[in-house]
Amino acid sequence: MPSYTANTRDMQFLLHEVLNVTAAGVPGYDELERDFTEAVLDAAAKVASEVLAPLNVVGDTEGCVLENGVVRTPTGFDAAFAAMKEGGWTALDCDPEFGGQGMPYLLNCAVGEIFVSANMAFNMYQGLTHGAYSAIHVHGTEDQKATYLPKMVSCDWTGTMNLTEPHCGTDLGMLRTKAEPQDDGSYKITGQKIFISAGDHDLAENIIHLVLAKAPGGGEGTKGISLFIVPKFMVNADGSLGARNAVSVGKIEEKMGIHGNSTCVMNYDGATGFLLGDLHKGMRAMFTMMNEARLGVGLQGYAVAEAAYQNALAYAKDRLQGRAVTGVENPSGPADPLIVHPDIRRSLMDQKSFLEGARALTFWGAHLIDRGHKAGDAAAEGLVSLMTPVIKGFLTDKGFETCVLAQQVYGGHGYIEEWGMSQFTRDARITMIYEGANGVQALDLVGRKLAQDGGKHVMAFFEMVKAECKAHDGDDRMKPFTDALKGASKQLQAAGMFFMQNGMKNPNAALSGSYDFMHLMGHVCLGLMWTRMAKAAYAALDGGASDTAFYEGKIATGRYYMARQLPACAMHLARIESGADPVMALGVDQF
Amino acid sequence: MPSYTANTRDMQFLLHEVLNVTAAGVPGYDELERDFTEAVLDAAAKVASEVLAPLNVVGDTEGCVLENGVVRTPTGFDAAFAAMKEGGWTALDCDPEFGGQGMPYLLNCAVGEIFVSANMAFNMYQGLTHGAYSAIHVHGTEDQKATYLPKMVSCDWTGTMNLTEPHCGTDLGMLRTKAEPQDDGSYKITGQKIFISAGDHDLAENIIHLVLAKAPGGGEGTKGISLFIVPKFMVNADGSLGARNAVSVGKIEEKMGIHGNSTCVMNYDGATGFLLGDLHKGMRAMFTMMNEARLGVGLQGYAVAEAAYQNALAYAKDRLQGRAVTGVENPSGPADPLIVHPDIRRSLMDQKSFLEGARALTFWGAHLIDRGHKAGDAAAEGLVSLMTPVIKGFLTDKGFETCVLAQQVYGGHGYIEEWGMSQFTRDARITMIYEGANGVQALDLVGRKLAQDGGKHVMAFFEMVKAECKAHDGDDRMKPFTDALKGASKQLQAAGMFFMQNGMKNPNAALSGSYDFMHLMGHVCLGLMWTRMAKAAYAALDGGASDTAFYEGKIATGRYYMARQLPACAMHLARIESGADPVMALGVDQF
Repeated sequence: MPSYTANTRDMQFLLHEVLNVTAAGVPGYDELERDFTEAVLDAAAKVASEVLAPLNVVGDTEGCVLENGVVRTPTGFDAAFAAMKEGGWTALDCDPEFGGQGMPYLLNCAVGEIFVSANMAFNMYQGLTHGAYSAIHVHGTEDQKATYLPKMVSCDWTGTMNLTEPHCGTDLGMLRTKAEPQDDGSYKITGQKIFISAGDHDLAENIIHLVLAKAPGGGEGTKGISLFIVPKFMVNADGSLGARNAVSVGKIEEKMGIHGNSTCVMNYDGATGFLLGDLHKGMRAMFTMMNEARLGVGLQGYAVAEAAYQNALAYAKDRLQGRAVTGVENPSGPADPLIVHPDIRRSLMDQKSFLEGARALTFWGAHLIDRGHKAGDAAAEGLVSLMTPVIKGFLTDKGFETCVLAQQVYGGHGYIEEWGMSQFTRDARITMIYEGANGVQALDLVGRKLAQDGGKHVMAFFEMVKAECKAHDGDDRMKPFTDALKGASKQLQAAGMFFMQNGMKNPNAALSGSYDFMHLMGHVCLGLMWTRMAKAAYAALDGGASDTAFYEGKIATGRYYMARQLPACAMHLARIESGADPVMALGVDQF
Repeated sequence: MPSYTANTRDMQFLLHEVLNVTAAGVPGYDELERDFTEAVLDAAAKVASEVLAPLNVVGDTEGCVLENGVVRTPTGFDAAFAAMKEGGWTALDCDPEFGGQGMPYLLNCAVGEIFVSANMAFNMYQGLTHGAYSAIHVHGTEDQKATYLPKMVSCDWTGTMNLTEPHCGTDLGMLRTKAEPQDDGSYKITGQKIFISAGDHDLAENIIHLVLAKAPGGGEGTKGISLFIVPKFMVNADGSLGARNAVSVGKIEEKMGIHGNSTCVMNYDGATGFLLGDLHKGMRAMFTMMNEARLGVGLQGYAVAEAAYQNALAYAKDRLQGRAVTGVENPSGPADPLIVHPDIRRSLMDQKSFLEGARALTFWGAHLIDRGHKAGDAAAEGLVSLMTPVIKGFLTDKGFETCVLAQQVYGGHGYIEEWGMSQFTRDARITMIYEGANGVQALDLVGRKLAQDGGKHVMAFFEMVKAECKAHDGDDRMKPFTDALKGASKQLQAAGMFFMQNGMKNPNAALSGSYDFMHLMGHVCLGLMWTRMAKAAYAALDGGASDTAFYEGKIATGRYYMARQLPACAMHLARIESGADPVMALGVDQF
């Protein structure tokens, strides 16, 4: 069975040596002293390895079962969920007014990575609740907040997000779920929603569904959509639970992975709902939380891969097979460990160099969200809005690839469920799809975010990269980083230029290259992260840090990324610059 | 549920317009007239779509079950297997002396693609039998051939290959299964073998296991290994079945995919075995068939992806979501079909351009095998030996990627087992692992095949590419093909040069780049295939062919591959030229 140990050392490095959180000037960050974050991360790591990780395979094997209209979660999930609640882990960054601990979002992300690595499917029950909490927190009336938030902060009640219908996912303008206004100000919600994660289960007393539906008078398409709170059990004035609402589970979907989470078809048959936010402004309300939600999925992408990598690494050190081409390394054994073979190294370095870069990018993104929310930094908000589709799309694509690489290290054993490596690949696969399929992320990036606010944010990003390179002018040690980053950044700018010059005449010229642009930008982002991490590592070494193996390993891993991953940028640029013609040449009947 | 229709049009194009089989001067190819191959392929296509494809999801859902020591295959597999036998499909390229039809291997491959696309797990029962048939056919005594081959040609008896043990797969020198010589010339085989595909099942009267084991006196490592025939039921002198041999199923493995095939742990407890081929030359005997076996797995890689692509294409034409950025294309509907969106096109073109190139490469490889075996062409044999790791490694990596792309077109529906797209991804995953994991293929390519016979075969390959480009000098229509191919081929040569210059001093410098070299060479091979296909398509158009949509589509698809896939070559070269340092820099404890 796979095991997992949180890489808190790397997290501490990012928080305190790269992001320098206590000096960052963000309200609330002054609390994030090194000892404090270490204590929090260590405590989370303990829960993860002792409580959550052992249930990961259980959840995959047992799955969720629908019996007599009730969903049963896998063995042990109830006790683990109770432990999460008792530990206060569900409330970490929630508003203290409603029982939260008011920690920065950044710290919540670090802890989130740990929990996702240990058990992604399990962590979704609280993850979805957090999303629903945020929507009510921002858009709810005082009364709604008082009614729902304390119970959702504690996860006594969990939450869901209901967008997709059988005939529409991305194109929500087509949705058919209806909301009929009632005399008492409530609505009757009728329709079917699919792919509802944590749609029903036995872990909470009540489930608060947030449902997109069309109320009369809003007009066509997405303009007519409103957002509604639809509790599973009605809530009485005194906070006690009342009658069962007219919402039921149609079925649980059989999925490729994340079996431990119940993915439900939800039927709303005139269920009582309450408008959340403004009428006909449901899309806006739902997407207020989009940056966080998508960053959270990007985090899932690499967090699952982190667990896969750890096991692949352990296997590569342990499994004896063949001899090193440069001479026997384990003379007392019948063969050398896999890790002596260059191609196994290549695979492990691909994994490691991606994972540490991905963690840095995600933490930076979370930090920008904190800057935006807590410090009112509009530039940070603009930057993270630009970065969000990259974090979601690039990190989940690469996270999945990393799981596949990790699985491959096991040879045939990687294909057998017993070893657990298949599960990581199957679980990670969903992250490329939900919360906006990665093609939609690329469209968002190229079709909207590049030009947002007159292109201000992408220009700021390029300036930031330039400044980072310039800061190390003449520093030979940093040259492998800054040279590669400069080159990649130029290629990204050339791609942007190609879109500007051709996209106006023919939008297909830009959109044919959107996916490659997302990946090209992902590499530039990780190149920037590695440059910053290398700088911090050199600073530590120069300062006489005792843990030289860590810092030297960090620099070597970064050099690997620059030398062996950034060459992908030229490929993406060439694909982009080939334009729309190759992509659009075939008639539909010629496929 | 997914559907599948064999692309016989493209196969006919390859056989008759690209490979020009009847003019190829290979014994037996004169039979392959256009009408004849069309009749064979159409008949196979009918079996595939009517009998095999409907069982693909059934096999995945039910899996194989071990009860009271007996393996039960999924519902309907027995009837389908009977249909395959009755149709003579198991005997297509087998020796007529033993009941086969004596067709070229090439035709068997074309038919094999059709069956694998329809139901990979099912087709493995006969596929493994064919491998065992070949080994006995080449290495067996007259008596052994007479005893086993007729029943194996008809698939009344099936076959297996037993190599892997719990502690060793790639490194077979460590295997522990023992063979003790008996007075009657037989051996007692004792040991445990794992991952034995079709190890036991209820589709055949008898199962002929080929087992690698160590007999006394052979020395250390792989030198001491011999190959044995171990029948499940002993065969009496009159050909009737005798006593049960001491071989049993330990368990069926739970796997990520190919659930319809029983993957068994096999226990040999003093089972009676008969030496096949020479004593202590078992590795040689087992690997005689390696080119075919590995080409067969490469074929699986793209064949499963072909089925996935067909369904993704149908979905992209059918599913309405969003509007074309260049203007509404389906004004009478609530939205346009997915296929109008450039990023969906990009995905479909990635899939299509790979699949058609992969088919061309595999058919060419099969043709080279025929040239070697039937026409005694040593150059062809050398070339296919060089190409084999590329066909296996590159086509399975890209085949899996293609399945993932196809799955992605479905959005959330791709993650739900109901739609069948997850199964393609899960099934295809094994092809990267078995028959030599792809890292081992890369090692074989760079560590052995490049230098084989003094580098003669790789030089011949480069000459062939050069000649192909030169043949189109001055032909503007072919320029997009020859220019790209020339560039990619130069990059491949530069990579080979880097290995020569650095690999002698430091073998890690070559082996750190082996995986990238395999992919770089894969792209050059597909570039060569696309150049040949474009040439054939232009020839058809120039000759006044009526099916212009097919030929123009072929050229456009080829141009896509050249413009958007060959840029990967420069990336692989850059990775290769970064050498061993980035890969080997970390100490084992620094990971």
